[in-house]
Amino acid sequence: MCPAPVSEGDNRGYIIPIGGGEEKELDPIILRRFVELSGGKAANIVIVPTASQLDDTGSRYETIFRKLGVKEASSIPVTSRKDCNNPEFADRCRAASGIFITGGNQMRLSAILGGSDVAQTIRRANARGVPVAGTSAGASIMSEHMMAGGEPDSSPSEGGAVLAPGLGLTNAAVIDQHFSERNRLGRLLSAIALNPFLLGMGIDEDTAAFIDTHGVLEVIGSGTITIVDGGEMMYNSAHAAKRDQGLAMLGLKMDILHEGCHYDLNMREAFPPTEDAQTVCSI
Amino acid sequence: MCPAPVSEGDNRGYIIPIGGGEEKELDPIILRRFVELSGGKAANIVIVPTASQLDDTGSRYETIFRKLGVKEASSIPVTSRKDCNNPEFADRCRAASGIFITGGNQMRLSAILGGSDVAQTIRRANARGVPVAGTSAGASIMSEHMMAGGEPDSSPSEGGAVLAPGLGLTNAAVIDQHFSERNRLGRLLSAIALNPFLLGMGIDEDTAAFIDTHGVLEVIGSGTITIVDGGEMMYNSAHAAKRDQGLAMLGLKMDILHEGCHYDLNMREAFPPTEDAQTVCSI
Repeated sequence: MCPAPVSEGDNRGYIIPIGGGEEKELDPIILRRFVELSGGKAANIVIVPTASQLDDTGSRYETIFRKLGVKEASSIPVTSRKDCNNPEFADRCRAASGIFITGGNQMRLSAILGGSDVAQTIRRANARGVPVAGTSAGASIMSEHMMAGGEPDSSPSEGGAVLAPGLGLTNAAVIDQHFSERNRLGRLLSAIALNPFLLGMGIDEDTAAFIDTHGVLEVIGSGTITIVDGGEMMYNSAHAAKRDQGLAMLGLKMDILHEGCHYDLNMREAFPPTEDAQTVCSI
Repeated sequence: MCPAPVSEGDNRGYIIPIGGGEEKELDPIILRRFVELSGGKAANIVIVPTASQLDDTGSRYETIFRKLGVKEASSIPVTSRKDCNNPEFADRCRAASGIFITGGNQMRLSAILGGSDVAQTIRRANARGVPVAGTSAGASIMSEHMMAGGEPDSSPSEGGAVLAPGLGLTNAAVIDQHFSERNRLGRLLSAIALNPFLLGMGIDEDTAAFIDTHGVLEVIGSGTITIVDGGEMMYNSAHAAKRDQGLAMLGLKMDILHEGCHYDLNMREAFPPTEDAQTVCSI
């Protein structure tokens, strides 16, 4: 599904996929920045804990966000498709100044929320300017084509990535998380081999892509974000490979970004941190 | 060490790094092609088993090459630096029409053979036109800067690659092996982050790069070869990263090649298999 259309005069809100395992106690720079974008002390954060099967995931994030000084933080306990029909939950999403989707299993997010009023309300809120952040499974669900599974591997293979329809807050990239930690480059490459119009975005733990209204992302956090661009591939064996066979992919571009780097998802171009911009090519 | 100079009228011989685990019994296409390049039935293959600590590695390859119909196949039992002074071994390398370096531990190859007459003779033989093949450790030793160690990882990190001086049959690339199988992209990227003049070449098991006298390689075997090119990197955090920290690398190019693909190591350009050349960009 494409992102919801932006009405005249509005700007699409930030989309903030986080690679999981973000710092929550000592110096939660990612969550703090999300709160600032959501209105700071005036923020009304709605938490979507649907991916998690733990009872306290929602309340745990309520506590974290309250500690960060927001006016309101409440989770909507959507755990079944029936819950999605509860108009209160969509109403609360509509009133939110920031929406946070927790980790867990992204298939729960797509299978439970998919096509519901709650999903539609989140999409429209983002199109109106409301920031939406998601960690781990909550990061993957954001893309139109969602990374749903695949074995750990550093190389691409036939069948190496399992995709499912996601929430469609962005259609620029397929998003993977726990990226370096769980050795997921192979499945990201396998995904873009299926259709190179997609960028692949692999986000490490405790690392986030703050994607602004112009489609430019800034990296914040302690790890890296890997962007794989197959747009200029001149050959790819995905259409001819046998089951589980390694794939040929000629002409890939890859950028590995750390904190302070930017990437323009529309121009497919990476930028080093500003303070280093004058010393590039110094190696 | 740079490759030995080629005398006027000579052409450098093939260099054939193999990713380990090459098929030896049923249809040994890689070893058969090496034998053909070494003179076929007239071939005199000398086997260097120094990397291995198994007693029968040399004799096992003697049997394999004899089965492939060569006139002569014999291993030189160099297991210490003292052995390297035995003039018989250098003489046999000098008489060889093809030299094969077995797998094992590449640090044994560099530490035992390094700077010896045997090493010098192999380098000069290759510069005279004699093909040199090496599998696993025997592949890594071929490069000027040899991949000596590093943890399995799909992402680059500070300290992620340990290099040592190799035999220097080629200085175009640092060569890694058992590549997809042992998840070694991260250490290959870490190596080229140290100095992007190097190409990174990661070779899967049962897969070989047949590198001709012009520096053009052809892929043969059942796996893939990954070429990582950092020559156009515009930013790289290797000089500033903390111990074990993930590295930023902006502007990487990557080509994953399968059988029939070519790569020009001088031009840094990949080519699809000929039969597919007319259908590229068909995805």
